[in-house]
Amino acid sequence: MSAQPDRAPLPADHPLSTGATSTSPLVQAYRGVRGATLPVWFMRQAGRSLPEYRELRTGLGMLDTCLDPALASEITLQPVRRHGVDAGIFFSDIVIPLRLAGIGVEIQSGIGPVFDRAVRSAADVDALIETGTLRADDAALDPIREGVRRTVAELGSTPLIGFAGAPFTLAAYLAEGRPSRDHLAARRLMHSEPDAWARLLAWCADVTGAFLRAQLLAGASAGQLFDSWAGSLSRADYARHVAPASARALAHAHDLGAPLVHFGLGTGEFLTEMRDAGADVVGIDYRLPLDEASRRLGGSVPLQGNIDPALLAAPWAVLEEHTRDVVRRGRSAPAHVVNLGHGVPPDTDPAVLTRLAALVHELGADEATGAGR
Amino acid sequence: MSAQPDRAPLPADHPLSTGATSTSPLVQAYRGVRGATLPVWFMRQAGRSLPEYRELRTGLGMLDTCLDPALASEITLQPVRRHGVDAGIFFSDIVIPLRLAGIGVEIQSGIGPVFDRAVRSAADVDALIETGTLRADDAALDPIREGVRRTVAELGSTPLIGFAGAPFTLAAYLAEGRPSRDHLAARRLMHSEPDAWARLLAWCADVTGAFLRAQLLAGASAGQLFDSWAGSLSRADYARHVAPASARALAHAHDLGAPLVHFGLGTGEFLTEMRDAGADVVGIDYRLPLDEASRRLGGSVPLQGNIDPALLAAPWAVLEEHTRDVVRRGRSAPAHVVNLGHGVPPDTDPAVLTRLAALVHELGADEATGAGR
Repeated sequence: MSAQPDRAPLPADHPLSTGATSTSPLVQAYRGVRGATLPVWFMRQAGRSLPEYRELRTGLGMLDTCLDPALASEITLQPVRRHGVDAGIFFSDIVIPLRLAGIGVEIQSGIGPVFDRAVRSAADVDALIETGTLRADDAALDPIREGVRRTVAELGSTPLIGFAGAPFTLAAYLAEGRPSRDHLAARRLMHSEPDAWARLLAWCADVTGAFLRAQLLAGASAGQLFDSWAGSLSRADYARHVAPASARALAHAHDLGAPLVHFGLGTGEFLTEMRDAGADVVGIDYRLPLDEASRRLGGSVPLQGNIDPALLAAPWAVLEEHTRDVVRRGRSAPAHVVNLGHGVPPDTDPAVLTRLAALVHELGADEATGAGR
Repeated sequence: MSAQPDRAPLPADHPLSTGATSTSPLVQAYRGVRGATLPVWFMRQAGRSLPEYRELRTGLGMLDTCLDPALASEITLQPVRRHGVDAGIFFSDIVIPLRLAGIGVEIQSGIGPVFDRAVRSAADVDALIETGTLRADDAALDPIREGVRRTVAELGSTPLIGFAGAPFTLAAYLAEGRPSRDHLAARRLMHSEPDAWARLLAWCADVTGAFLRAQLLAGASAGQLFDSWAGSLSRADYARHVAPASARALAHAHDLGAPLVHFGLGTGEFLTEMRDAGADVVGIDYRLPLDEASRRLGGSVPLQGNIDPALLAAPWAVLEEHTRDVVRRGRSAPAHVVNLGHGVPPDTDPAVLTRLAALVHELGADEATGAGR
């Protein structure tokens, strides 16, 4: 865990430096401290499940929206206002740092990110790297910094979490040129051209690391690295060909002392490798019970997760029972931030999320007073 | 394991009854016996990777092709002739038994199976069940039986494996109405309407079980149940809401005494449940090393797998080293049938598969003579 919440080089007016967020339930839990409030937020809480988001997005492209500081900030704030969750997560897209590094990419409706060209060979990797890179102080990141600043000013004592894709997930998109089910192109490049693959991953790590660092310096109180597609890998391939790059990405933020969360989908076989990449907190997907996840991590790592998003559409009694079970199992970790085990489905009834956040707070209060034992 | 290879009620002229295939390397390995030949076949070996397949399919729909006995048989035979593999796998589609039960479904190019209506509620489940079902002796299965008979007549001593989708994978398609990435609709129905879900799964089990039984009675010497999407489940959900239906599907074939293989993608957390559903052999995807899979299964179960299909496009030396590692790890199981850990990618160079089959046979010969130790 990060030892000191507010050492240099975070600016003096940063919410962790001023103390605005450093004693918040979220930051405390991320640092392994259980408090009176059981914190909760929802991955993809900002976005299509909210009518106020759909209204705002009308006629606007995804990446343009992410790069408009006022819009990105407003969208980030919407679910915090509505649900009373314990954190905002900066509204963005994992391909934003690639776009800012000069890579041609669009988000196509109903498909996802589509790149001008796929990266399938050593020559493609070299061409990509020559196109450009991204550094945390680049002017290209100004709209991100401005969006974060506006958001943090509104959030006050509620922490903002910085958002970034993990290098493997970025590389999987780049290798395929678009979303795919099995990420074959990435694994082909990894095994066919391991040196080029390592260069690609290091580049992705630097680009996404700079993106995360810029958000933290501008006011985010924590950061989360999302590895959506790492579950397509064996433990051995992850350890050898991916973990060093995830560590490199997180290393871009380590000196800031803000807690860092590492989340993957279907990565239950290599949670220890994900922690060892430099994470303070490991996010667990809906497949693995938190007590088992904590056991695999030696019982020493704060966990985040893992309500099955499929249950958001189930009768309330079913969702409530499941949530109680998640909270109960989460007690085996030193601290627990309640979340979903994957993103909010776009067709989710937002009222269910509001009620769910309230339930988690109730359960946490029971826990703090011993009523839930 | 099935105790007796050739007891009733397999017909007297069945290849397991006549002995034509009962001492084949594949059937022996499936029964847990290591012989002089290390058997190998490739999931999805019949299909788009072969130019002779693409030529034959020109202008023909997928499901129509599957239901044409001459075409299905010819397509099944193509990879056996070309690659010298130790088994044919009957060319079909997992939605074929649904179509034969009267469900409206088409395979759309570039998408996959698309159903006339999605099954999202108890009422939808009841309507589906009222539409019809499938029994192993139904005339609707005549084209399948005829296709199998023709194939077996050509294959001689090479066994044919019967092909069927597992109930969860069928239900996941039905609930979504089309392919999806996270199978949310299936898990929603499972948790929201557990009784209706159980009825749906039992119906899928009977339909796919009848499809598998018909293939076995017509001459297939083994059967494989494919659970492509079960990896989207937690172990607890699999055990409670899925495994009973997979057991029910396999039970349709148990009395025949032919070996049964159970394969899932991303199901490393619940291999024992997959075996306990009544499988003689467990198929392992490319993510989990075979020695670890064997350990999880108590070292007593013949395994099938698990070359990473991404490596088919890697330089030969890389693929060869990986294959040697797979064979080495497979020695920890009582017997091993070499296969991929997922289907052949459509753009695979077929010459690589031919060379790979030869390599496996070489490695097996070395093993039998002790040269590989």
